[in-house]
Amino acid sequence: MANPKKAIVFVANGTEEMEAVITIDVLRRAGIEVQVLGVEIERGPVTCSRNIQIVPDAFLGDDAGKIGSYDAVIVPGGALGATTLSQNGQVKSILADFYAQHKVVAAICAGTLAIRSAGIQTKSAEPPSVTSHPSVRDQLERDFAYKEDRVVVDRNLVTSRGPGTTFEFALKIVELLVGVDRAREIAGPMILNFEV
Amino acid sequence: MANPKKAIVFVANGTEEMEAVITIDVLRRAGIEVQVLGVEIERGPVTCSRNIQIVPDAFLGDDAGKIGSYDAVIVPGGALGATTLSQNGQVKSILADFYAQHKVVAAICAGTLAIRSAGIQTKSAEPPSVTSHPSVRDQLERDFAYKEDRVVVDRNLVTSRGPGTTFEFALKIVELLVGVDRAREIAGPMILNFEV
Repeated sequence: MANPKKAIVFVANGTEEMEAVITIDVLRRAGIEVQVLGVEIERGPVTCSRNIQIVPDAFLGDDAGKIGSYDAVIVPGGALGATTLSQNGQVKSILADFYAQHKVVAAICAGTLAIRSAGIQTKSAEPPSVTSHPSVRDQLERDFAYKEDRVVVDRNLVTSRGPGTTFEFALKIVELLVGVDRAREIAGPMILNFEV
Repeated sequence: MANPKKAIVFVANGTEEMEAVITIDVLRRAGIEVQVLGVEIERGPVTCSRNIQIVPDAFLGDDAGKIGSYDAVIVPGGALGATTLSQNGQVKSILADFYAQHKVVAAICAGTLAIRSAGIQTKSAEPPSVTSHPSVRDQLERDFAYKEDRVVVDRNLVTSRGPGTTFEFALKIVELLVGVDRAREIAGPMILNFEV
């Protein structure tokens, strides 16, 4: 592809590694350029929620000037990781900016908490529809139209529920960025148990 | 648990990161101690099939004396990674030893090729039943009773097909090591789309 679509996936200590890795891998299978962006001050591998260590491709602030060239931003879950991402000022402003620019803003599991801390619920007259892991539902249902679907798309906002919904979540992002035909093309070799 | 079950997951450059990470994470959720064992000579992160870098917990040979204390050994797929693992003499002898000792020997995707190169098909009168990624089926069907089920269990051998079957594969290993009740207990919070 001459001009591939580009996505940022944030990672922090405590990020749910299945949610991060399935999303990154599926997007890359679709030809989307994914930047795995660490947010911790220590520039090293992040230790994920089940102790798998992943090396980020780059760190927040490394190429701040290029952030605007990305087409999507994605927040994985994992309680500790999602808390760190929710409290990071740069992450919050990237989420708010991408949402305002009608770029894809996606979060899964406890990652949806970062959508709230970025103030996205205040950007339109009607509260956006979202979902999340059931364990953080009570922190979201006041500000959002909360749904229990496995993946919820509302305007440019994509949210989902947990490790077991990540293939559906990632394929929805693929569909939004490069089309459903590409999503179907990469689904076959992964041997999923659902239709795209 | 006083005496937790213990499993080895091999990783190499080119390992399919979804298959490795889902398996490791699901087993750890079940309280199984997982050792992510790198086999490359360079003692650093492995670069997986879609360029995610994972740091192994240890490297082959580090604690060779303790290999016997593990209850299961698992080979993920990814063409390049599976080839490396299939050609590694220590990996092959660990797989053959564990199979002979009736410990769980598990492989997914192209990982099933390591089952063949370990000679497991020669260990019993009837060829064992296995599955794999469809792309390597022709390298397996002569020596094994090839099946197309998403997960195939034959004696202590567990095989599966690809990224999209990894949750089922990992939960089957959990069931064999610590029981179906534990598998069901951890399934709920992961929000899967199938029953355990």
